[in-house]
Amino acid sequence: MEYKNELRRFIQEELHQYLSHVSVDLTIFGFHDGQLKVLLLRWKGSDDWSLPGGRIHRDENLDAAAYRSLQERTGLREIYLQQFHTFGEVERYKNFSRQETAVRLGIPADLHGELFRRDVSVGYFALVEFAEVTPTPDRFTDECRWWEVAGVPPLLFDHNDMIRLALKTLRQQLSYQPVGYNLLPEKFTMPELQRLYETILGKPLDRRNFQKQMLAYGLLERLEERKTGGAHKAPFLYRFDREKYGKALEEGI
Amino acid sequence: MEYKNELRRFIQEELHQYLSHVSVDLTIFGFHDGQLKVLLLRWKGSDDWSLPGGRIHRDENLDAAAYRSLQERTGLREIYLQQFHTFGEVERYKNFSRQETAVRLGIPADLHGELFRRDVSVGYFALVEFAEVTPTPDRFTDECRWWEVAGVPPLLFDHNDMIRLALKTLRQQLSYQPVGYNLLPEKFTMPELQRLYETILGKPLDRRNFQKQMLAYGLLERLEERKTGGAHKAPFLYRFDREKYGKALEEGI
Repeated sequence: MEYKNELRRFIQEELHQYLSHVSVDLTIFGFHDGQLKVLLLRWKGSDDWSLPGGRIHRDENLDAAAYRSLQERTGLREIYLQQFHTFGEVERYKNFSRQETAVRLGIPADLHGELFRRDVSVGYFALVEFAEVTPTPDRFTDECRWWEVAGVPPLLFDHNDMIRLALKTLRQQLSYQPVGYNLLPEKFTMPELQRLYETILGKPLDRRNFQKQMLAYGLLERLEERKTGGAHKAPFLYRFDREKYGKALEEGI
Repeated sequence: MEYKNELRRFIQEELHQYLSHVSVDLTIFGFHDGQLKVLLLRWKGSDDWSLPGGRIHRDENLDAAAYRSLQERTGLREIYLQQFHTFGEVERYKNFSRQETAVRLGIPADLHGELFRRDVSVGYFALVEFAEVTPTPDRFTDECRWWEVAGVPPLLFDHNDMIRLALKTLRQQLSYQPVGYNLLPEKFTMPELQRLYETILGKPLDRRNFQKQMLAYGLLERLEERKTGGAHKAPFLYRFDREKYGKALEEGI
């Protein structure tokens, strides 16, 4: 009941503050335990999940709206968000029809029209350090948590398509841009970096070639410290040279 | 006068058929005489140019709206259009302010608000064969013609930014996707293909390495014919293997 009143209040009092027919959705990737994860929200009183997202204030830049959502859901600021595709089909209901979606989310019939107007949605993805995120639901959702990318359930709207395309874009970018600055802790080992690349690419890479290639880009700084705690000879720790990394993002590798 | 009436009729009778706050803009690249060109429109009764673009019908997919604009301005169908970025700043007036733009285009003061509502615009680019295009102005423009990319004047709105980013995207794609299928005639020589790559990249490439690399991708078919008409030994003609080219677009090279 409270949820329905909340929806009604949102439509009647707040919806007009936002641009109509356009929204943002965020695919937030994290890397943990050698696995790529994505942040999802479970809607109030339902078992259904979606990506985080939001609307754009009338006087707010598109990117600013995406950063606002990112911060609200993760607590993170100054994380690089990348726009990757705008989703503009008339019917963006894939796993569940528009009608079915309304029923599953318990949205009263008189609110369908207003809440499910056609939106063109701009997709962004972010790469974040898993350990630094405080997953936080929004007003329409009960739960916000990480899912393994490989185990994501059928999502609301076209959000499975969004994750798929975000991942494809990330894979393509590996051929001309460095990846890892935001996904890894500040100091990391070469095997950790390799595992990240393997996870994104979905295939194993040769250890020697990988190390050679990574060092050849000139973005890594080898530290004097070694990683401690393992049974084997402790591997060297590396970190990205922030300046060179930024330059490589701009100009390609 | 006729133009102003046309604008008024558009706002009063047609604008409601389209999604508000979202539009498409097209950067249409062609390759001719060893130069990369872009298709621009000159607005009625003005000296100002912009990219082609348009609005999205309420029951029309976003991509379909972009293809419709492409076809109307070029006469071409079945040309690959690629979405590359969505432009969503609140103020998308760069070279000329909103007010200045209205004056330059002779838009009556009472129509400013309706015509210059805030739009988030989805940018697409296309690569087309120069010789096959019939440049066609739209209802608000007098002239549609090719400009050398290097010599594009200060454009209306944020359209210089759009061309710049389309070109940057195209450059990045050269590292993981083939380019040329739609930009070159069906049969072409290796020097013509090289010149295309050099134009996009904005730098000269080594002839031998280029040829070796291109052949290694396995997308080119060498024909029995040679190009005739030159003073030197006639170069071989090539064409893309359409199936392999499509596969490479999908999976990367």
